[in-house]
Amino acid sequence: MRALVYNKELRYLADYPAPKPKHDEALIRITYAGICNTDIEITKGYMGFEGVLGHEFVGVVEKCGDKSIVGKRVVGEINLSCGKCPYCRNQMQTHCSDRSVLGILNKDGAFAEYVTLPVGNIHKIPNSISDEEAVFIEPLAAAYEIIDQVGISSSDRVCVLGDGKLGLLVAQVIANTGSKLTAVGRHREKLTILDEIGINTGLSPDYKEREFDIVIDCTGSASGIRTALQIVKPRGRIVLKSTIANKIQIDMNQFVINEISLIGSRCGPFPPAIKAIRSRQIDLYPLISNVYPIEEGLKAFQNASSKNALKVILRIS
Amino acid sequence: MRALVYNKELRYLADYPAPKPKHDEALIRITYAGICNTDIEITKGYMGFEGVLGHEFVGVVEKCGDKSIVGKRVVGEINLSCGKCPYCRNQMQTHCSDRSVLGILNKDGAFAEYVTLPVGNIHKIPNSISDEEAVFIEPLAAAYEIIDQVGISSSDRVCVLGDGKLGLLVAQVIANTGSKLTAVGRHREKLTILDEIGINTGLSPDYKEREFDIVIDCTGSASGIRTALQIVKPRGRIVLKSTIANKIQIDMNQFVINEISLIGSRCGPFPPAIKAIRSRQIDLYPLISNVYPIEEGLKAFQNASSKNALKVILRIS
Repeated sequence: MRALVYNKELRYLADYPAPKPKHDEALIRITYAGICNTDIEITKGYMGFEGVLGHEFVGVVEKCGDKSIVGKRVVGEINLSCGKCPYCRNQMQTHCSDRSVLGILNKDGAFAEYVTLPVGNIHKIPNSISDEEAVFIEPLAAAYEIIDQVGISSSDRVCVLGDGKLGLLVAQVIANTGSKLTAVGRHREKLTILDEIGINTGLSPDYKEREFDIVIDCTGSASGIRTALQIVKPRGRIVLKSTIANKIQIDMNQFVINEISLIGSRCGPFPPAIKAIRSRQIDLYPLISNVYPIEEGLKAFQNASSKNALKVILRIS
Repeated sequence: MRALVYNKELRYLADYPAPKPKHDEALIRITYAGICNTDIEITKGYMGFEGVLGHEFVGVVEKCGDKSIVGKRVVGEINLSCGKCPYCRNQMQTHCSDRSVLGILNKDGAFAEYVTLPVGNIHKIPNSISDEEAVFIEPLAAAYEIIDQVGISSSDRVCVLGDGKLGLLVAQVIANTGSKLTAVGRHREKLTILDEIGINTGLSPDYKEREFDIVIDCTGSASGIRTALQIVKPRGRIVLKSTIANKIQIDMNQFVINEISLIGSRCGPFPPAIKAIRSRQIDLYPLISNVYPIEEGLKAFQNASSKNALKVILRIS
């Protein structure tokens, strides 16, 4: 099958072996898949992953023991858990100690014609959600994880830091909580997308004071946490969404002196993400920069890595 | 007056000018004062402080508008706040944006014959608490801050990391919560102090698995946070008590991947610390390494910086 494979370098292969579903798995034909910053970081060494990249996708189930989903348009949760360990038994499947993660850890991903996933990971999507929109369900679920982790009240002054594709999703999710939100970034043209739906925005250099109760770092860069530490109030909270291939230099004293909390945040729940798209609470089309056929995957990655890009989507079948 | 003064280097001076109390302040004659790791870090550049060091003390009020405390043995909270800013009005005086901090920020400290403090910062101590014990009230209050910040339940597996003077205090405070505590350090002879009062202890190299719900870093070194990230469970919490002069290199991805929370923790409430000492819940004498007269302050600092030292106390008047 056609696939984008990372193995010391990123390559497009026309003849990568197709995966075979296990007895509890579905075989999914991928239609569209989105390039995430994590994919780009993997090509810089993050996670030491080798194999087919990609974990944001929409597809159609071609084979499955559960006939109710065969032929259906689906998306899939990306953590494959054992179901037996203490984390799995405690509703923490995303932290299963024996997990594999689609396109990130010990499991070929979705930048390919076919992927396999356990039936339990699969969510059918309603017809009112387009394929291009469905590609955003996985990262949007990661945005909803913040709501589950951090109680956000309407009196909280919240800053979403970073105006990349994740920041623009997170800002829209936070805006729906009714808190006092400011989305802060470095690119006026990206922030305009939020301005147009009524979200308060600002440029990073204008924020130097400790004025936010909660700062959500979606910058995907080492500077994000440093800026967050400058603008969060004493006893405030920083939510860290960025994963970065390299270690960073940081003054940990700021956490102690100002008694700041840092909350790491990864994958999240799919149902609220699907519901939010279906009920038109989240505006996704302005976030799509380009759509490339998978054969032009390398070019798509180059585009996705460029400063002005937002979501770059691969059309696969 | 006699004083230990840091100004690019640490010096003992016999003729440092005595402070004059403002109208709402007491003049306190210091009897004993304890050397904290923060003092040692200041002599390495932390906080950029210059002046009289010292913030853990016990003394006798010599002059004060409030006659009810004149002649009384007292300890004092170290943050001098404005009383007017939003933090002060919101019971967050330790985070007053206009604060000075005894021996740490814009305010001469307690390694001197006299110190001044606002009356509101002063706590009388009962006769059943000795001067040497009273020196521990400030760092013990900092240990109680953890309890206020982090709900610790009896089912939580808690690790106190670091067997220095702060770690041994924190371990005793946490032990009283009834949680499943292990105090982990590098010095068998220091951990023995905890063994003898029935606290479970272990040596750092024996801990490599993610087994703790809460890890409290009291190591005072950059390695502490790295070890904490290795042994805390996914979705677990790390409490950071250590302040270190230098920036550190850290893999922030661990926070994201394992959704770990980090909570910075600084000064705490004095009343529970005073109560705990009075009711003999905390064993302090084994934590005293040495007592030096202030004239031998440089020697006392050398001793306090040595690997095997615990609390080094200065006898001042």
